[in-house]
Amino acid sequence: MEPKLVDLRVDRARLLGRIEALHEIAPITGDGGSRGNARLALTDADREARDLVVAWMGDLGLTVTVDSIGNVTATTPWGDGAPVMTGSHIDTVRTGGRFDGNLGVLAGLEVIETCLTGNVTTPRPLAVAFFTNEEGARFAPDMMGSLTYAGGLAIEDALDTVGIDGARVGDELERIGYAGPFPCPGPAPHAFVELHVEQGPVLEREGVTIGVVTGVQGISWHELTVVGQSNHAGTTPMHLRHDAGEVAAEIAVFVRRLALELGPPQVGTVGVLELQPNLVNVVAARAKLTVDLRNTDDAVLTEAERRVAIFSDELAEREHVTITSRSLARFAPVAFAPDLVDRVEATARELGHSVFRLPSGAGHDAQMLARMCPTAMVFTPSIGGISHNPAELTADADLEAGANVLLQVLLQLATAP
Amino acid sequence: MEPKLVDLRVDRARLLGRIEALHEIAPITGDGGSRGNARLALTDADREARDLVVAWMGDLGLTVTVDSIGNVTATTPWGDGAPVMTGSHIDTVRTGGRFDGNLGVLAGLEVIETCLTGNVTTPRPLAVAFFTNEEGARFAPDMMGSLTYAGGLAIEDALDTVGIDGARVGDELERIGYAGPFPCPGPAPHAFVELHVEQGPVLEREGVTIGVVTGVQGISWHELTVVGQSNHAGTTPMHLRHDAGEVAAEIAVFVRRLALELGPPQVGTVGVLELQPNLVNVVAARAKLTVDLRNTDDAVLTEAERRVAIFSDELAEREHVTITSRSLARFAPVAFAPDLVDRVEATARELGHSVFRLPSGAGHDAQMLARMCPTAMVFTPSIGGISHNPAELTADADLEAGANVLLQVLLQLATAP
Repeated sequence: MEPKLVDLRVDRARLLGRIEALHEIAPITGDGGSRGNARLALTDADREARDLVVAWMGDLGLTVTVDSIGNVTATTPWGDGAPVMTGSHIDTVRTGGRFDGNLGVLAGLEVIETCLTGNVTTPRPLAVAFFTNEEGARFAPDMMGSLTYAGGLAIEDALDTVGIDGARVGDELERIGYAGPFPCPGPAPHAFVELHVEQGPVLEREGVTIGVVTGVQGISWHELTVVGQSNHAGTTPMHLRHDAGEVAAEIAVFVRRLALELGPPQVGTVGVLELQPNLVNVVAARAKLTVDLRNTDDAVLTEAERRVAIFSDELAEREHVTITSRSLARFAPVAFAPDLVDRVEATARELGHSVFRLPSGAGHDAQMLARMCPTAMVFTPSIGGISHNPAELTADADLEAGANVLLQVLLQLATAP
Repeated sequence: MEPKLVDLRVDRARLLGRIEALHEIAPITGDGGSRGNARLALTDADREARDLVVAWMGDLGLTVTVDSIGNVTATTPWGDGAPVMTGSHIDTVRTGGRFDGNLGVLAGLEVIETCLTGNVTTPRPLAVAFFTNEEGARFAPDMMGSLTYAGGLAIEDALDTVGIDGARVGDELERIGYAGPFPCPGPAPHAFVELHVEQGPVLEREGVTIGVVTGVQGISWHELTVVGQSNHAGTTPMHLRHDAGEVAAEIAVFVRRLALELGPPQVGTVGVLELQPNLVNVVAARAKLTVDLRNTDDAVLTEAERRVAIFSDELAEREHVTITSRSLARFAPVAFAPDLVDRVEATARELGHSVFRLPSGAGHDAQMLARMCPTAMVFTPSIGGISHNPAELTADADLEAGANVLLQVLLQLATAP
């Protein structure tokens, strides 16, 4: 069987056809006529997308299960033991692209259909899943479905989550018909491999086709509130000011300098910065800013957090302002299974693709599955690094290449003893 | 007559009574039960305040004139030649205090009533005016009435100004009955002296009662728009970013550093700073910020503007962003008449008050009158430097002291040959 398996290739047109069909549900248009989606988790649009993908799963003769957080898993009728699983998500942010998440799910279906049309089976079953609320754009935290599947979040807490619109996850699951009977945490797969678009500019800059993902960066989010004193911008000498806006700006500049000093893969971003009263001739009384720090090395990430805290404390003392810090999120870095990462790289090379190893800067369902089983990811390049935007785009040839790497890695895992 | 004049003093209770009565029109409450006003120019509240002050002017037997921009001038029936004028404004910002402007107008009335009750007249007439729309909170530019009076703005342009609510100055003047018959520009006074609260912390910090105002700082306002590139905060390495937010923060930090380097009285403020999309995990695509620079020395102010422009240009090149700059306002510094400034200081000292010379960081009607005649200002301390806030406050004793300095300076000017 082995010689036949390594010659199998996905059907590009069939894969692209499913991507287009899924895009037709809640489509949006962006700059330059770009085509994305707005399918927040557990909305009517999400239900419609789920129903379509479940129908495809049924068409392929797969066994479909829905668990209590709404994750949907489709397993091949062939094979014994724990399945070799792939998958991702089909919910999007409000200004989402049409590949983020969807590619991983539909490439999983394509892998299985390729087996079916190639008339091959594997010793272990194959499974493809889509996980609930990966984006977190309506309900926090993000990666909710895979986190609950992996036992990192109690199902009761997940179901009781209230979203930005006041809706409760449990109620919305019931409403759209995806409150399934299968328990969470779910069964551990034999292995998990996820295909995803990079959502960053590295692969394009490196000029390679396949990204071999070594792990997922740890994430630290803090919201800082600076309270100074509102004053007249004309009548208040510089040395008598307690300028919350200037303090916020100094922190933003420091975060950048710190990330550069610590070096790659450390990144640091102040994405939110708001002043009060935000008037041209008034020294700001208050400022709010967020600090997003990420690193694959938890020790360095912790050091970065410490340095920001020290800088803020010193600044508060110097400027006679108060700075309060609130943690919004903290995920430790995840390292994928080295053997499996090596296998992804070797397979991509065997298929003739250029490769580049990189950590993921974004969170993915795979990082939750990594708690249960050997896990890896395959990235395809994002043109211009654009993500969470209708203009998100990956070349057709790269989509096909990524799906073929996924196919061959899954086949190896499902046939290896 | 001279011995009698120098012994004249204002009636503190009468002055405070008028301040309280004017405060009753469109009052607002601030922090700690503080009492301010919301009387935007040419609103019904402004009309009610105008009617009250005009009634007081009539009660004192003064000759009241209203000009075509709605400035109201009340002149004593005694004296020959151009009047010695005082005055200020009775409009407020939306969150105004009860002394800003009002003090100067009501102290002017009190000076004249003190003459009346003291049964004294002066060789030159005394006049007290309130000027239309000093604050600029509804119609731009601020100091509109005094600017038009002094010939710095054509009456047609002033009347055609449309406010933030879509109303036209000319229409609103007609509506509230203050489109007067007297022409603009108006007649040059013999001299002009304005009493005003400092609106800053300097006098309180210096522990003095009377501020001798040497002039008004020049003002330069620019709005800068930074266009970078939106990117994922996790997946975009630092060296591939074009972070509009970080660039805006660097400019804010530079403006502060520049003001400190140039030294007093240079001040610099970034009061507005807004990011787009302003999300925790997205590198900002765009930023808007304002730069407010002020100095009494126009050469230094111009140098400060140049340095900000150079810094922005270099930053734009380094970070591969575009920065566009738009001038929002530019007023050259004004130096008050040295002899008259000296007279204010000497008079305050003769009255036993501690004094401090300082430039005004805020704009005032006096700076427009300075185009027509010798002009000066008297400041009283603002507790905590608070201004444009219901919590704006000046101690009763300081209000009285300021009014007595104004009284004695006006009497000297009106009696000197």
